[in-house]
Amino acid sequence: MVGGSLALALRAAGSRVVGVDTDGAAADAAVRRGAIDDGGTDLGAVAGADLVVIATPLSRIVEAATAAARLMRRGAVLTDVGSVKAPIVEALQGALPGGVRYVGGHPMAGSEGRGIEAADAGLLTGRPFVLTPTRQTSRTAVTLVEACVRRIGMRPMLLDPRSHDEFVAQVSHLPYLVSVALLRAASGEALAVSGPAMSGMTRIAHSPPAMWVEICAANREAILAALERFEGELARLGRGIREGDPERVIPDGSPAASGQGGAT
Amino acid sequence: MVGGSLALALRAAGSRVVGVDTDGAAADAAVRRGAIDDGGTDLGAVAGADLVVIATPLSRIVEAATAAARLMRRGAVLTDVGSVKAPIVEALQGALPGGVRYVGGHPMAGSEGRGIEAADAGLLTGRPFVLTPTRQTSRTAVTLVEACVRRIGMRPMLLDPRSHDEFVAQVSHLPYLVSVALLRAASGEALAVSGPAMSGMTRIAHSPPAMWVEICAANREAILAALERFEGELARLGRGIREGDPERVIPDGSPAASGQGGAT
Repeated sequence: MVGGSLALALRAAGSRVVGVDTDGAAADAAVRRGAIDDGGTDLGAVAGADLVVIATPLSRIVEAATAAARLMRRGAVLTDVGSVKAPIVEALQGALPGGVRYVGGHPMAGSEGRGIEAADAGLLTGRPFVLTPTRQTSRTAVTLVEACVRRIGMRPMLLDPRSHDEFVAQVSHLPYLVSVALLRAASGEALAVSGPAMSGMTRIAHSPPAMWVEICAANREAILAALERFEGELARLGRGIREGDPERVIPDGSPAASGQGGAT
Repeated sequence: MVGGSLALALRAAGSRVVGVDTDGAAADAAVRRGAIDDGGTDLGAVAGADLVVIATPLSRIVEAATAAARLMRRGAVLTDVGSVKAPIVEALQGALPGGVRYVGGHPMAGSEGRGIEAADAGLLTGRPFVLTPTRQTSRTAVTLVEACVRRIGMRPMLLDPRSHDEFVAQVSHLPYLVSVALLRAASGEALAVSGPAMSGMTRIAHSPPAMWVEICAANREAILAALERFEGELARLGRGIREGDPERVIPDGSPAASGQGGAT
C-alpha cells in the first residue's frame, strides 16, 4: 500500500519506477495498476537505480536493505518506509557496502488498506515524510530523498530516529491500541447504535494485525511510555467524573485550553 | 445542530416546522437557512403542533419539555433528542399534563459542529433514531415518532432507557474521553507529524466541552463502567507488549477474531 502509493506518485512526477516483490503476482498487479514501469522478483533490478525504497514489512527491512545494497551501484541512495526508525537505522548505518548511502524514511500517510489495490498517490499529498539522518548520514542522500519527497507533493521533515519513534508512538501506535481496546470494550448491541465518532475512532483497528505486532515489538519502550501517559490522562478524567465534578477535568481537556496546545 | 438538522429533514419531507429558541437571532438564522417555516422566542407556538421536539442542552430538557407540555394541545406528542435518556424519561413520564404523550428520543447522528450553521439533514440519513418507550409510554406516541423518523430516512430503534445509556456510554461518551486523553497525552511535536488516524480519533475532542460536562454528570455510572472495561482491555494490551509478546494480545484484537464480534 505504501510502496505502491509512492510508486504511483513518483511515476506521475515523471520518474521511471521498477518494482521488486518476492511475490511475482504482486509485481504484475503493480504493472497493471500503472504503479511501476516494470517489475518482477529479481532483486538485481536495483542495480540500475539512483534511489531504492524498501517498503517491506518492518521485520524484513534490514534483511531486504542489506541484500539490495549489495547489488546497488556506488553512490546510489537507499531509504525505507518503516514505521519505527531507531532499530533500523542502528542496524543499517555502517553495515552497508561503502558506496551505498542510507537515510531512514517514514511517509506519515496511509490507510487501513493493504497491498497494491489500496495504493493511492492522493494519500501522500501534503503529508509529512520524515527523514531520520544521523551524524553518519551522507548529506547527498538526504538532499536526494528530500527532492523526491517534494516532487511527489509531500513535506520533508528531519527528526532524529528516537524522536521519530517517540512521536509516532503517541500519534499512531498508541491510537491503534486505543482503537482495538474501544472495540473490545463495546458490546455488539452498543456497536449497533454507534455513529461516525466511533467509526472514526476504530477505523485503524481494522488494519493488518501482523503489522502492529511487529511495530509493538520494535517500538516497545516508546509505546509503553505513551500508554502510561495516556492512562494517566484518562484516569484523571475518570476521577473528575467519579467525584461528581466533570467540569473540573473536561474544560481544560478542550484542545484550545490544553497545555499541549492545538491539534489536527 | 441536531434540532436544525431534524428541522431541515422534516421540511424536506413536507412537514410544516416551527422553531422556538430562547435566542431570537438563532430562530431568525434558522428561518434564513430554510430549516423552519416560522420561528421566534414565543413558546406559545407549540400550541399548534402535532409533534414537539425538544433539542435544548441536556440540562434544560426537563424544564423545557415541562413548559412546552403545558401549552401543547391534548393528544399531541412530545419527544427530545437528549444524549442520556434514563434521568430524562424518569423525570418526564408521569409528570406531564395528562393529554400530552411523551416518548424519549435520541437520533444517533451529528457532528462536532454547533448551532444552525452546522445543521445538515444529510447527517441523519440511514442513521438509527433510538426511541426509549417504557410501560407507561403511549403506543400512539411511539407510532407517530417512528413514522416521522422513517419519513426523514432514519431507522427507528426501540431500547429501554438504561440500555440506551449503557450503549452510548460505550460508543459515544467513552470515545469522547479517550479522544481528549489522546490529545492531552501527545506532545505538540508529535501532533505535528500526526496523520489521518490521529485526526479521526481526536475529531470528537473538538466538540463543545459544556455539552460533555452535562453528559458526564447525567450518565456517570454507565460511563464509569465503560471506562473500567476499556482500561482493562488497554491494560491487557499493554501487558502483552511489556512482556515482549504483542502477538499474544493483538491478533484477537482484530474485530473479526474478537469475541464481541464485528464493528462499524
